[in-house]
Amino acid sequence: MLEQLKKEVYEANMELPRRGLVTYTWGNVSGIDRESGCFVIKPSGVDYDELTPDDMVVMDLEGNKVEGRYKPSSDTETHLELYKRYHEIGGIVHTHSPEAVAWAQAGRDIPLYGTTHADYFLGPIPCARNLTTEEINEAYEMNTGLVIIETFTKRKINPVYTPAVLCKNHGPFTWGKDAAEAVHNAVVLEEVAKMARNTELINPDVKPAPDNIKDKHFYRKHGENAYYGQ
Amino acid sequence: MLEQLKKEVYEANMELPRRGLVTYTWGNVSGIDRESGCFVIKPSGVDYDELTPDDMVVMDLEGNKVEGRYKPSSDTETHLELYKRYHEIGGIVHTHSPEAVAWAQAGRDIPLYGTTHADYFLGPIPCARNLTTEEINEAYEMNTGLVIIETFTKRKINPVYTPAVLCKNHGPFTWGKDAAEAVHNAVVLEEVAKMARNTELINPDVKPAPDNIKDKHFYRKHGENAYYGQ
Amino acid sequence: MLEQLKKEVYEANMELPRRGLVTYTWGNVSGIDRESGCFVIKPSGVDYDELTPDDMVVMDLEGNKVEGRYKPSSDTETHLELYKRYHEIGGIVHTHSPEAVAWAQAGRDIPLYGTTHADYFLGPIPCARNLTTEEINEAYEMNTGLVIIETFTKRKINPVYTPAVLCKNHGPFTWGKDAAEAVHNAVVLEEVAKMARNTELINPDVKPAPDNIKDKHFYRKHGENAYYGQ
Amino acid sequence: MLEQLKKEVYEANMELPRRGLVTYTWGNVSGIDRESGCFVIKPSGVDYDELTPDDMVVMDLEGNKVEGRYKPSSDTETHLELYKRYHEIGGIVHTHSPEAVAWAQAGRDIPLYGTTHADYFLGPIPCARNLTTEEINEAYEMNTGLVIIETFTKRKINPVYTPAVLCKNHGPFTWGKDAAEAVHNAVVLEEVAKMARNTELINPDVKPAPDNIKDKHFYRKHGENAYYGQ
Repeated sequence: MLEQLKKEVYEANMELPRRGLVTYTWGNVSGIDRESGCFVIKPSGVDYDELTPDDMVVMDLEGNKVEGRYKPSSDTETHLELYKRYHEIGGIVHTHSPEAVAWAQAGRDIPLYGTTHADYFLGPIPCARNLTTEEINEAYEMNTGLVIIETFTKRKINPVYTPAVLCKNHGPFTWGKDAAEAVHNAVVLEEVAKMARNTELINPDVKPAPDNIKDKHFYRKHGENAYYGQ
Repeated sequence: MLEQLKKEVYEANMELPRRGLVTYTWGNVSGIDRESGCFVIKPSGVDYDELTPDDMVVMDLEGNKVEGRYKPSSDTETHLELYKRYHEIGGIVHTHSPEAVAWAQAGRDIPLYGTTHADYFLGPIPCARNLTTEEINEAYEMNTGLVIIETFTKRKINPVYTPAVLCKNHGPFTWGKDAAEAVHNAVVLEEVAKMARNTELINPDVKPAPDNIKDKHFYRKHGENAYYGQ
Repeated sequence: MLEQLKKEVYEANMELPRRGLVTYTWGNVSGIDRESGCFVIKPSGVDYDELTPDDMVVMDLEGNKVEGRYKPSSDTETHLELYKRYHEIGGIVHTHSPEAVAWAQAGRDIPLYGTTHADYFLGPIPCARNLTTEEINEAYEMNTGLVIIETFTKRKINPVYTPAVLCKNHGPFTWGKDAAEAVHNAVVLEEVAKMARNTELINPDVKPAPDNIKDKHFYRKHGENAYYGQ
Repeated sequence: MLEQLKKEVYEANMELPRRGLVTYTWGNVSGIDRESGCFVIKPSGVDYDELTPDDMVVMDLEGNKVEGRYKPSSDTETHLELYKRYHEIGGIVHTHSPEAVAWAQAGRDIPLYGTTHADYFLGPIPCARNLTTEEINEAYEMNTGLVIIETFTKRKINPVYTPAVLCKNHGPFTWGKDAAEAVHNAVVLEEVAKMARNTELINPDVKPAPDNIKDKHFYRKHGENAYYGQ
């Protein structure tokens, strides 16, 4: 079942090592079929070299495995919570890409310093809080998803306009309309995280980019008045 | 028309990902034919993998598309203003290369710290000011070009001797006698930006290189007394 | 003798340049056969390009060469001391990988800042003290091993749960259940060292990750309650 | 003439881009035949892609071109001064490798922070002073060589034991018993420069490595008591 989606999710997973975002098995991509309510995700701890489209695991939104010979990614419950809450999302990525991880470990939002960032994200990349011991012990991966949602809700951030988050002391999640776009956003996030680090090294007193250039670039590429691309 | 120029501009565009200066479609190169008053530029948002010489768009200096099945780069008006004002320029490049972007986001000129810089640029790489909200709303890309020109005029910088600029919170533009030289200068700028960042990390109190070594290296490679090369 | 082990140790050595951990001949991997009490190690100063499985040197735990046409790695005595003391270890790696070396030269432990670190190491990577002049003159490589052991003993660190150390002003050693796992840990250490450096640049006041997330991630992958992987 | 040496020098030049030490044509390697008193050097400003062994230029120690259809490297006079003064040197390299250039632009010696450095250089890499305007105008490249020699003489540094120097606001020169060893030392210098930068970022108060470990590592690989390698 969902052979086309499995292929897409497989291809999106394979793009992670090609883009230098993962070492060993440190990453996972999923994609959802909203009609059937099932999503497809990478199996846990399987080498990218050995992965095939058939190895992808099919899950439903209650967390049951529907198909697949492998256990799904250990982060499956995090994906599931995001899919349940954000209906506009079609694909999700988690990596330990080093530049984004450095901001997550530093416990800081990535400020919006320029147009590279604003072309994709309409504001800082938020850094979600640590989980409590109770949240970790009860259901670590599910609560990771809930804390991401809490962050966007409390801070009134639209997850469609800012499709990325940092989990404190952990790493980034990104998403998009499908698995390929979620990976695209993971690549951009890593680039933006590196630029932001170097920006602060060059000018420790730097301020975020003005709102007018931020809005100009975001809406040049997104929304009904977009005029970038063909 | 302009088949040879299209090929040159195509090749110059393809050099950007080969040199690691662009991620996805974040860059554009153009080249001008001064006789016909037309310039050739990359189409907007088309993947480098799929680009062919025939995809290049031909524009005139009034901003009309003369030939091409695609929309031109969204930055076309910036190129146009520079071509109109600087008659010595034959090619222009815009990228989001990360080291140069970090300086642009930091809002600082790149100081001339050594001979690698002085071999190509006769002074700091200037960082142009932010556009006002009016300038952004009226004609963002055209005004980006005009603010670049304002920077060189006000600061009395010769754009032939310093063929690069940083647009604040955005990124670099470089140029040259043709598209290939403009790309060459974009590669050098990225290298120089990285060296300058690391120079300041190693010595926060560092001063720019003395004028005598700056002039020696620039005129060793440029002008009538140059003796570098064959 | 030990043809299978020689092949494994050879493959583990060749993984070092493939993973970008060594320049020229700066690294060595060994693996032990506990039954015979012999270990297999890279010869000293031989280019990776020219290495074959047959070039591996077989040593016993008294430091005698049992087989091999080459002299063993100059760091052989360090490996030997670790094998003698830590019976759970099956493979050892030494490199001059640049990010880990920077911490060793800085003379600092690598703090545990996040889950990438905690997935593999249950606490900071300790930095062992400098050897005294007497220790250097008497038996440099043997005493390097003894100072590593002293570090783990004094600080009550379990070398199975934290399979890596930094030797001050020198570089890292890592280990594992076999040569391949020791190399895997060397790759992770380099990645973790880079992330930790950048974390501190982004937030100079950063604190280590909380114990609850550290324990969660370590025991998600290790021990009887592990549920990562297949 | 000197066909074997031309081949060696050609190969050594080609190793520079392979090792990532040069962008475009920014580097040159030479090698000397002490018997004939002639040295072979890369032509000025010729692309590495188009270089052949026959393009190498043969010079004598009076600075006359003995053979070759091209002009020699613009840095030829610097090489010449070093060959004339240091009879133990058989090959010389100049690059603009970015990590070493950053130290040169910062105007600082590279401190000896660890064994990677001490395995090749018996002390800090000295940073030579700027040339005066008179020295630049009179004979820039020759005086660059003389200022390097002045640095080693005044500071009583043995150029055989510390085969590298930084020219202030410019970049590194390295040397060795032949062209290949000079390139080897250029690669090590770049690695050591990067490690030293990161060492200081991790610990701004770091001190150089103790003399006992410096001497141990240098003499483990050099001199009559060396025991590294086969």
